Amino acid sequence: DLNQHENYFNRETLDRLAVKRTDKVWLEAKQNNPDTVYLLFSNLSPMVNSSQEDDNARVETKLCRFRYEAVKELLEKPATVLIFLGVEKRKKPSSSSSKTEDGVQEPPAWFAISTNEDPAALLKLCREKNCSFPKLPNRDLLKFSEEEAGVVAQARSTLAWHDRYSFCPTCGSSTKLEEGGYKRSCLNSDCRSLKGVHSTCYPQVCPVVIMLVIHPDGNQCLLGRKKIFPAGMFSCLAGFIEPGEAIEEAVRREVEEESGVKVGPVQYVSCQPWPMPSNLMIGCMAVAISTDIKVDENEIEEARWFPRQQVIDSLCRGASPAFFVPPRQTIAHQLIKHWIGMNSNL
Amino acid sequence: DLNQHENYFNRETLDRLAVKRTDKVWLEAKQNNPDTVYLLFSNLSPMVNSSQEDDNARVETKLCRFRYEAVKELLEKPATVLIFLGVEKRKKPSSSSSKTEDGVQEPPAWFAISTNEDPAALLKLCREKNCSFPKLPNRDLLKFSEEEAGVVAQARSTLAWHDRYSFCPTCGSSTKLEEGGYKRSCLNSDCRSLKGVHSTCYPQVCPVVIMLVIHPDGNQCLLGRKKIFPAGMFSCLAGFIEPGEAIEEAVRREVEEESGVKVGPVQYVSCQPWPMPSNLMIGCMAVAISTDIKVDENEIEEARWFPRQQVIDSLCRGASPAFFVPPRQTIAHQLIKHWIGMNSNL
Ligand SMILES: Nc1ncnc2c1ncn2[C@@H]1O[C@H](COP(=O)(O)O)[C@@H](O)[C@H]1O
Ligand SMILES: Nc1ncnc2c1ncn2[C@@H]1O[C@H](COP(=O)(O)O)[C@@H](O)[C@H]1O
Ligand SMILES: [Mg+2]
Ligand SMILES: [Mg+2]
Ligand SMILES: [Mg+2]
Ligand SMILES: [Mg+2]
Ligand SMILES: [Mg+2]
Ligand SMILES: [Mg+2]
Ligand SMILES: [Zn+2]
Ligand SMILES: [Zn+2]
Repeated sequence: DLNQHENYFNRETLDRLAVKRTDKVWLEAKQNNPDTVYLLFSNLSPMVNSSQEDDNARVETKLCRFRYEAVKELLEKPATVLIFLGVEKRKKPSSSSSKTEDGVQEPPAWFAISTNEDPAALLKLCREKNCSFPKLPNRDLLKFSEEEAGVVAQARSTLAWHDRYSFCPTCGSSTKLEEGGYKRSCLNSDCRSLKGVHSTCYPQVCPVVIMLVIHPDGNQCLLGRKKIFPAGMFSCLAGFIEPGEAIEEAVRREVEEESGVKVGPVQYVSCQPWPMPSNLMIGCMAVAISTDIKVDENEIEEARWFPRQQVIDSLCRGASPAFFVPPRQTIAHQLIKHWIGMNSNL
Repeated sequence: DLNQHENYFNRETLDRLAVKRTDKVWLEAKQNNPDTVYLLFSNLSPMVNSSQEDDNARVETKLCRFRYEAVKELLEKPATVLIFLGVEKRKKPSSSSSKTEDGVQEPPAWFAISTNEDPAALLKLCREKNCSFPKLPNRDLLKFSEEEAGVVAQARSTLAWHDRYSFCPTCGSSTKLEEGGYKRSCLNSDCRSLKGVHSTCYPQVCPVVIMLVIHPDGNQCLLGRKKIFPAGMFSCLAGFIEPGEAIEEAVRREVEEESGVKVGPVQYVSCQPWPMPSNLMIGCMAVAISTDIKVDENEIEEARWFPRQQVIDSLCRGASPAFFVPPRQTIAHQLIKHWIGMNSNL
């Protein structure tokens, strides 16, 4: 289960081993290595295997893992995108792993493949039953173990970048993939982006603030709902950090924009990479210095102050809670739980 | 001067008033308003006025401010980029500001103009002497007042985005500027980026971790130097957050990559927007759980554990400090100062 301040999608199961991204010989040897693990993505969804075998009779989703032999042909297709995810962070090397020349055992490497081949044909590559490419990432990608969720976050957000950034933003030319999938370089040799180091060539992460705003009385918190939320669900306010803005200022601006409430002190709590498509959710607690609510109707349908007891009832899924919050895998849920744990007398 | 945890570039002098970005009528009225303030950028440098009149005989830099009449012709040029920065966050409206129909005084709006016209000709637009477009942003943009530094951070990082992202990364077509300069939309009506909301259309901010790593004995900190640093300067380690990565994990990965030192607990301290070109520096303290140093020679020339007393001498610019740290305007300086203040007996 999750440690305090650890969020779903946070766990790093692999050592990214960035130093090897520029080592073409090493990368190619790993690609052909029989111990190497490949994940398959179609339309930014990983192939998964769903079973009912979990202790709590919940559906648990597992990543389908492939060996080189199974994906060899896919790797040859020109539209395939391949990214190096890293090597397993294992303490004890298993006897099956390969040895380098000096006899030291190297842990298995992981790659992710993105392909536009027919999904039905791809599913036949897997020996297991009940495989699929999930359709609703915001729901279906929350069913992995903590370990696999971390790998999915890294792979999906990097592949989403390749999907949206195949052309050079500086000159409009095509680009080529480099450094194990962590760089795209412009193919126009006159392009400015080739002189010096430019952010346009590297995977983008969008920083977002997400905050639980506490009423000046300390006993209520501000939650809002977007029109697209399921009926009855309320969550923390959130928004993209803008250029030239600090985290704390973005919290104040977004809360005021979305709810009309003014915020004083802001405290960072924890963060969560959110791979839909590539956000970094920076979670904060914030203390309101005004209480009147006036929602920005473009973004928020309703915002309300919820008393602590109602929030507790909702988290504990009591008899008939007044509302519900997003699932435990979201940082919004964890921020709300953090507030309840922080200064309640339970 | 700076409050605790406030960094240079952090202060928000303007209310960004994002709700007005889509209100073309309001924006146009503000553009022509005689109270409106325009800043002029050439090659991502603002026009500034430098004087020796500061109390401490230091050179202070001020932004050159223009009125509509002075920039009217520039606004007509097709290559001009215009962004709406916001309105002044004033408590008491001055008697000179314009009134809306119901008689409420509105604070002046600010815009930034980026132009590729001849810089020498542009300088003639200003009535003051000693105006220039500074050449070295990392040095010259650190000389503003706190108030002006915040405006420069917002304007420069947004303009740097326009400079690098004039083509659609998804299809390579040209784009047009919208929403007061906070959006670029693809001109190819078939482009995927026009269906739904896509990060490619909004200004990019790159999140970076910057950390002061403390020795397990609590009395030394880890600082490194890049080859390009001035001789004798050491600073905090730093690196870009990767897709799928949490702040704390990025700190651990970058420290290990750059210095070979393993890190345990990580604590967020404060952050700083850094508009060269558009980074968000997320400042942390980190506790090492190993001490052997092995630098990544591609990135770091040298890394060393510095005893607390040497760091104090360096901050106080004592007789002959063993090394020096970056200037007070950098979050690296502030993190180092924070550590010294945190548990010293001074
Ligand atoms: N990187 C980004 N990705 C997606 N939308 C963005 C981004 N930056 C700004 N936006 C805008 O922010 C809106 C969502 O509002 P908020 O999340 O509250 O900032 C979107 O509808 C976009 O108009
Ligand atoms: N957004 C970005 N902008 C610039 N360089 C980046 C970016 N993301 C990754 N990099 C790479 O990171 C290197 C600097 O290393 P570091 O700052 O330690 O992560 C650069 O030389 C680039 O290769
Ligand atoms: Mg918003
Ligand atoms: Mg926003
Ligand atoms: Mg929002
Ligand atoms: Mg890096
Ligand atoms: Mg690095
Ligand atoms: Mg670095
Ligand atoms: Zn290019
Ligand atoms: Zn396009």
